[in-house]
Amino acid sequence: MILSALLTSVGINLGLCFLFFTLYSILRKQPGNVTVYGPRLIQDGRSQEETNAFNLERLLPTAGWVRRALEPTNEDILSNLGLDALVFIRVLVFSIRVFSFASVVGIFILLPVNYMGTEFEEFFDLPKKSLDSFSISNVNDGSNKLWIHFSAIYIFTAVVCYLLYCEHKYLSSKRIDHFYSSKPQPHEFTVLVSGVPVVPENSISETVESFFREYHSSTYLSHVVVHRTDKLKALMNDAEKLCKKLTRVKSGSISRQKSMRDGFLGMFGKKVDVVDHYEKKLEKLEDDMRLKQSLLAGEEVPAAFVSFRTRHGAAIATNIQQGIDPTQWLTEPAPEPQDVHWPFFTASFVRRWISNVVVFVAFVALIILYVIPVVLVQGLANLHQLETWFPFLKSILNIKVVSQVITGYLPSLIYQLFLMIVPPIMLLLSSMQGYISHSQIEKSACIKLLVFTIWNSFFANVLSGSALYRVNVFLEPKNIPRVLAAAVPAQASFFISYVVTSGWTGLSSEIFRLVPLIWNFVMKLFGKEDDKEFEVPPTPFCQEITSILFFGLLGTTYFFLSPLILPFLLVYFCLGYVIYRNQLLNVYAAKYETGGKFWPIVHNSTIFSLVLMHVIAIGIFGLKELPLASSLTIPLPILTVLFSIYCQRRFLANFKSYPTECLVNKDKADAREQNKSEFYAKLVVAYRDPAVSASRYARGISLEDPPLLRSNQG
Amino acid sequence: MILSALLTSVGINLGLCFLFFTLYSILRKQPGNVTVYGPRLIQDGRSQEETNAFNLERLLPTAGWVRRALEPTNEDILSNLGLDALVFIRVLVFSIRVFSFASVVGIFILLPVNYMGTEFEEFFDLPKKSLDSFSISNVNDGSNKLWIHFSAIYIFTAVVCYLLYCEHKYLSSKRIDHFYSSKPQPHEFTVLVSGVPVVPENSISETVESFFREYHSSTYLSHVVVHRTDKLKALMNDAEKLCKKLTRVKSGSISRQKSMRDGFLGMFGKKVDVVDHYEKKLEKLEDDMRLKQSLLAGEEVPAAFVSFRTRHGAAIATNIQQGIDPTQWLTEPAPEPQDVHWPFFTASFVRRWISNVVVFVAFVALIILYVIPVVLVQGLANLHQLETWFPFLKSILNIKVVSQVITGYLPSLIYQLFLMIVPPIMLLLSSMQGYISHSQIEKSACIKLLVFTIWNSFFANVLSGSALYRVNVFLEPKNIPRVLAAAVPAQASFFISYVVTSGWTGLSSEIFRLVPLIWNFVMKLFGKEDDKEFEVPPTPFCQEITSILFFGLLGTTYFFLSPLILPFLLVYFCLGYVIYRNQLLNVYAAKYETGGKFWPIVHNSTIFSLVLMHVIAIGIFGLKELPLASSLTIPLPILTVLFSIYCQRRFLANFKSYPTECLVNKDKADAREQNKSEFYAKLVVAYRDPAVSASRYARGISLEDPPLLRSNQG
Repeated sequence: MILSALLTSVGINLGLCFLFFTLYSILRKQPGNVTVYGPRLIQDGRSQEETNAFNLERLLPTAGWVRRALEPTNEDILSNLGLDALVFIRVLVFSIRVFSFASVVGIFILLPVNYMGTEFEEFFDLPKKSLDSFSISNVNDGSNKLWIHFSAIYIFTAVVCYLLYCEHKYLSSKRIDHFYSSKPQPHEFTVLVSGVPVVPENSISETVESFFREYHSSTYLSHVVVHRTDKLKALMNDAEKLCKKLTRVKSGSISRQKSMRDGFLGMFGKKVDVVDHYEKKLEKLEDDMRLKQSLLAGEEVPAAFVSFRTRHGAAIATNIQQGIDPTQWLTEPAPEPQDVHWPFFTASFVRRWISNVVVFVAFVALIILYVIPVVLVQGLANLHQLETWFPFLKSILNIKVVSQVITGYLPSLIYQLFLMIVPPIMLLLSSMQGYISHSQIEKSACIKLLVFTIWNSFFANVLSGSALYRVNVFLEPKNIPRVLAAAVPAQASFFISYVVTSGWTGLSSEIFRLVPLIWNFVMKLFGKEDDKEFEVPPTPFCQEITSILFFGLLGTTYFFLSPLILPFLLVYFCLGYVIYRNQLLNVYAAKYETGGKFWPIVHNSTIFSLVLMHVIAIGIFGLKELPLASSLTIPLPILTVLFSIYCQRRFLANFKSYPTECLVNKDKADAREQNKSEFYAKLVVAYRDPAVSASRYARGISLEDPPLLRSNQG
Repeated sequence: MILSALLTSVGINLGLCFLFFTLYSILRKQPGNVTVYGPRLIQDGRSQEETNAFNLERLLPTAGWVRRALEPTNEDILSNLGLDALVFIRVLVFSIRVFSFASVVGIFILLPVNYMGTEFEEFFDLPKKSLDSFSISNVNDGSNKLWIHFSAIYIFTAVVCYLLYCEHKYLSSKRIDHFYSSKPQPHEFTVLVSGVPVVPENSISETVESFFREYHSSTYLSHVVVHRTDKLKALMNDAEKLCKKLTRVKSGSISRQKSMRDGFLGMFGKKVDVVDHYEKKLEKLEDDMRLKQSLLAGEEVPAAFVSFRTRHGAAIATNIQQGIDPTQWLTEPAPEPQDVHWPFFTASFVRRWISNVVVFVAFVALIILYVIPVVLVQGLANLHQLETWFPFLKSILNIKVVSQVITGYLPSLIYQLFLMIVPPIMLLLSSMQGYISHSQIEKSACIKLLVFTIWNSFFANVLSGSALYRVNVFLEPKNIPRVLAAAVPAQASFFISYVVTSGWTGLSSEIFRLVPLIWNFVMKLFGKEDDKEFEVPPTPFCQEITSILFFGLLGTTYFFLSPLILPFLLVYFCLGYVIYRNQLLNVYAAKYETGGKFWPIVHNSTIFSLVLMHVIAIGIFGLKELPLASSLTIPLPILTVLFSIYCQRRFLANFKSYPTECLVNKDKADAREQNKSEFYAKLVVAYRDPAVSASRYARGISLEDPPLLRSNQG
């Protein structure tokens, strides 16, 4: 790729970005789009008054949203959006800092060195230069200029580690601050116990109660045994749908049809009044539900949410092995009530463990074999094949423009479609692993997605060849530096244009929210707007953190190979900073708080990127006939890993659980301030399965406290 | 090696063993040797009356000791010798079970198959057969007989895993039983806190007290701050020596010399009375010690032993992170008071961590480079070199017998000498790692020694070549099975004779205790016998477990390659069972109880042996042109590792700490039975540094409770 081609691509994508931003700044001011661009504002009741009056300002693009997005301080974000949002923002800040430094070193030191590598070239004719002139491959073998690269690698590593250390320190302290300043949460007082041993004469509930009364007598408060509620949930869904229909019929929105037949699809049978018909159906369902609920007592799962009087009490139960058999009385911190992933509870210790292993195998197979179906489908979907399958398209396909578009875009479109199904697959795999909460599933999916992206977007592009060849490369660790050093620099121009196209365009489509916008438009067009079905979208941490980290990996590995990538990355991160702040403030709302548990992923990914860079450097200096530099680089990955281990000990422990000091202080502060009994009353019912604890759709029948499932308050 | 040569070697070694046993059974009956063969009996006061009367029976070899060694049940061993001794015995029982099964399969199935591998050979001429005729290399390439080996590997693995599982189950339950039946021990109630933050205005002691009063108000009992006592200890050693001398002078054992000169080496200066002289010296030393002790307050180390009222209280402090900074307020279970390794306390978190890294590097370097000095010294110590160095020996060295002995035995002698210094080096390395107790040091040294033995006795023999070559082999994981499959079977005869010579002879020298016997004899000869200096030797778990595990590894890897090794191994383990039981009952006494913490090492070593066997099998089936069998073996190591992970989760957690259930039950039982205040009074002073808490040798001056070091009782 030559420089002018790159600049053209940059120009086109910059233009696209500006177009999107302009459209966004206009569209967001239209009152009809507030559900697309400001669902969070609506939820908080902060959306501006919907004046339908025409106003010239509404049609002019303005940049006020950028200012508003940058306004809130970190403290505001922490208190309003939670710790996860802060971590997300800090990841971007960290990336901006790292790549600001990298850009300065790369553009002002490494780039000139690379460019003048072979000889003193003249500067005219610059646009026609290949991008390789700016990369390390332009430097002569054995040249002493490579020592500049060597020093740059050492300095860059030190700076990244220092920044990472600062960020760790900052986030750790913020996490503790957030804990101290937050109100008492049920999950802080609660522990999930699984693997409750089955005692022949006692019910699960009795076993749990006697165990915790015996061994945690001073802190035990209450417990809720978990029940198998799949069937009940199916009934509830039916009831929910019927209830909605009934409301609509009564309110008259589908009043055209006052009576219907009660047979198959409402087409046969005798005519009945619609309202009567639905009410009868609903009553029958409610009877079914009551029956199911009464049967549930027999479907107890050997797991329970046990609540304690203090946070410290819950921490004690979590951190110390409870029963003599380590596979029984397993305790783990309870997730937030709205975060519980209910379907997991059928699994015992061994089954959860086996499903973990199975998921791991499936994941590895998916990563390695993913490319095969993609290539197969791409191979099938060529022009001739299409002509054979759909002969009637022949005349259209013969038009030159159409055929060019199809040959040019179809494979890439298929690739993109295949990429789009990956995050759901990862979520599915993670949910099969037996995690008890949505947040754990999302975190695990994030790790999987990151590994998948690094393998299939980085290594698959760098090491062209069969999937088996790539696996083989990693089975011979001694050869890895050499192979990578030969392959990675060759893909520099591909990844530069990847940053510009995929990265920049991804961001502008993120802010533009094309799919929800069209959906909103279509809904309005068909008059199906329904305020009650309006939902604030959850923050897509999983995908977004993965893509930010992947771009960070690209920047780190190409930092000394091809510094031209750095300014484009810096632009990406700066844009990302503005856009994601805007989205977090206006669009998304977290459904649950993970307490900053995405940060360790960021740490590990950064360390991996650095080590990968070092490995490539070792290989490059070897290939460039500077064996001394190659040997002197070897301590660097070792030092980096040691730094990582140190950070893990020094900081990451704080991201797993809270120390005694915090727990006891907070408990004492609560004891002074808060009306405890009121909170305890809430705590006792917080972990009822939504399927059993209440039926929102049943009119008049209170299932608030079914006798068989009454939690045992202590 | 041919069969007759092997049988000769077996005959010689069997003869040697019987000679040793006969001598042992006679010598142990001599009253003068009771300090050699029954120090434990003396300690317990169970040694038979020392009748010096001559008795014919005393000169006849009898096998009564074997019966007596086999008499005690597992329960007796557990209650009298402790859990560690039981674990040690059970390792031997486990090995005997495994290799009984292996011997049956190997001798009656695999051996005939191997022998008739190439063709139906006649059975005469058996003695002249090479040992290779009995190994897998005798089977034709691609022969279907290899499927018998394949099945044997699967069955053997399953049997070993089953036996391991049973042993896990048995030992876990015994560990809990032992805990329930034991008396209250100070270390169960105590936690070692290190990394106490330095608060400018408070002393360490005040900081510790305020922290634990604040956060463990209900269970905190007392604490003892650790002091830097290196110099004090040196003074104490001097005082101890002087004190002993004084006692001897007073009692008249060196009464020949009533007065001495007080100058250099007692040769110059004015004549003084010896008793006066020593008493004055001792007084001066005592003054020094008091001065030091008063200065100690300024030498507080930021670490303390904190005692709690209940075991559960101590477990809570151990298992939950205490301070906000995870590198401060580090807690770990306290070792037994007599087990504390005092010199460690100068180290902070970071220093302990760095010394860990340094020790790891030193250990790896030692393992890999160990062979180099050995080979160098062996090269230097040849006949010509000796003649050059010691010309006066020339005439002796020219005698044929002498030269043969030297060329034959000198290299092997040097190798053995080098091997003998390895365990002390490993102990030294481990003690530099910052462990707080002797038992942890010994456990860590055991792991190091095992790794060292496997590398330098197994891989160094199998993969002949430079040290770098061996390292290289393991850097290309794909080639490992092929390389091992080619190299391991070739060394079968070497390892068979290794078992017979090193294994059997090692055991008989263990029971014969040659060095202590000679030492005892010499001491008697020179009349230096001193009953007060008599010490029961500590159980050498580290070396003995390592050698048992190494023989287990040999047996497992050669099980299907060369089953001829199995009966010899079985004999080794049976002999070992009798001998070690005898030694544990009569000779050794454990200084501290690790609570069976050696068992996880046995587990890991067994799993490693199995996986190593599988890897070799994969390579062998590949080399023998049976690729299907090779591929079908691949799941086996994976299944074995999964089994190992399962066991770790299911059982090994129990070897780390005790569960809440046990702790609370035991606490409650104590509360019912025991006179608590008496025990608490003992507990408060249990963890005083021996250097400060009392001076046994200072007469009349009570240093029992120096004011500055008074523990703060809560």
